[in-house]
Amino acid sequence: MERGKLKPYSLSKAYGLLEPGPVVLVTTAAGKKRDVMALSWHTLLDFEPPVIGFALSEGNYSYSLLEASRECVIAIPTAAMVSTVVRVGNCSGRTVDKFGKFGLETAPAAVVKAPLLTDCFANLECRVIDRSWARKYNFFVLETVRAWMDPAARNPKTLHHRGWGSFMVAGRTIKVPSNKR
Amino acid sequence: MERGKLKPYSLSKAYGLLEPGPVVLVTTAAGKKRDVMALSWHTLLDFEPPVIGFALSEGNYSYSLLEASRECVIAIPTAAMVSTVVRVGNCSGRTVDKFGKFGLETAPAAVVKAPLLTDCFANLECRVIDRSWARKYNFFVLETVRAWMDPAARNPKTLHHRGWGSFMVAGRTIKVPSNKR
Repeated sequence: MERGKLKPYSLSKAYGLLEPGPVVLVTTAAGKKRDVMALSWHTLLDFEPPVIGFALSEGNYSYSLLEASRECVIAIPTAAMVSTVVRVGNCSGRTVDKFGKFGLETAPAAVVKAPLLTDCFANLECRVIDRSWARKYNFFVLETVRAWMDPAARNPKTLHHRGWGSFMVAGRTIKVPSNKR
Repeated sequence: MERGKLKPYSLSKAYGLLEPGPVVLVTTAAGKKRDVMALSWHTLLDFEPPVIGFALSEGNYSYSLLEASRECVIAIPTAAMVSTVVRVGNCSGRTVDKFGKFGLETAPAAVVKAPLLTDCFANLECRVIDRSWARKYNFFVLETVRAWMDPAARNPKTLHHRGWGSFMVAGRTIKVPSNKR
C-alpha cells in the first residue's frame, strides 16, 4: 500500500492539493506507449471525490494517449523539480521517452495504467468521465479515483506558471476563520 | 483611461495573471442589483484574448446575476485583503450589500456593467461566451474583453485557497529558460 515515499490519501481532502493552482505533470499510458507532460490549465469542478477539468491541447502526444485510454495520473511537483518540469514541457513524447531522458521515477498506480511519479509529493489517479468538450476546448472532465501523498510533505513549494519559464513558488500559509470548504 | 490605481493592461499578457491559480473576486451586475463573490475554481482555456472557464455554483446570488447579464469582472486580490476575501465568501448578496458592508472601492468598467474593484491589483472585464455547461457543472466560459492592472504591482502576493480559511500566499518568483508561453 505504499509507492516509494507515497501513501494513500483521502479523496475528501485531495481537492485542496489542486485548488491553489499548481503546475502538474500528467502521465498517460495506452498499450506499450506512455507519456508525461506539464500542464497548468486545470480547475476543480467538484469536491468529493475530486472532479477535475483540464485543457490538454490536441497537439500533444499525451492527448492521443488520453483519448485512447481515458485515464491519467495528475502528479504535483515542487520547486526542486523546476528544471525537470520545464524540460518535460519543452519536448514531445512523440520523439522522446521523457521518463528515461529526464530520469523520472515511476511506480504502478493502483487503478489506472498510467504510472505514478514518485518524486512528486502528490499523485491523483483519474478517469475521464466527460470528453464532450474535447474538440471544442481541448477540455476533459476527470474523476479522481485514488490519491497518493507523501506524508512528510509540509507546506510544499509548488510551482505556479506565469509564462515563458517564469514561476511563482508557493510561499507561507495563512489561516483565517472561514466556514467555506 | 485610469481607474484609481489601475491602468489598461494588454490582453496578450493577461493570461499570466490567472494561470498561477489565485483566488479571485467576481463582481456581477444586472439592473439595479449587484454582487461580489470569492472563487477559486477557474482555468485558462485560451491565451489571447484570455478565455477563462470558471465554476460558479447555482446556489450563489452571483449566479443569477451572471445568468441575467452574461457579464462579470474577475478581480485579483492580494494577501492584504484576506479578511475581506473570506468575509465576502462567507455571506450571500441576497441578504447583504457586500460592497457597502466590506467597504469595497469600485469604479465603472469600460465595457461591462459589473464594477471594477480598484483595491485589487488586476481586473478583467469578461463576457460569457458559452453557458452550455452551466447546468451540468455550474461551468461558464468567458472571454476577457478588457484588462486593468496596477503598474506598481510587483510580484503580487496573491492568495491560493486550500480550504477552510487556509491560504497559500504567493512566494518568490523563479525563472528558467523555456519556450512555452
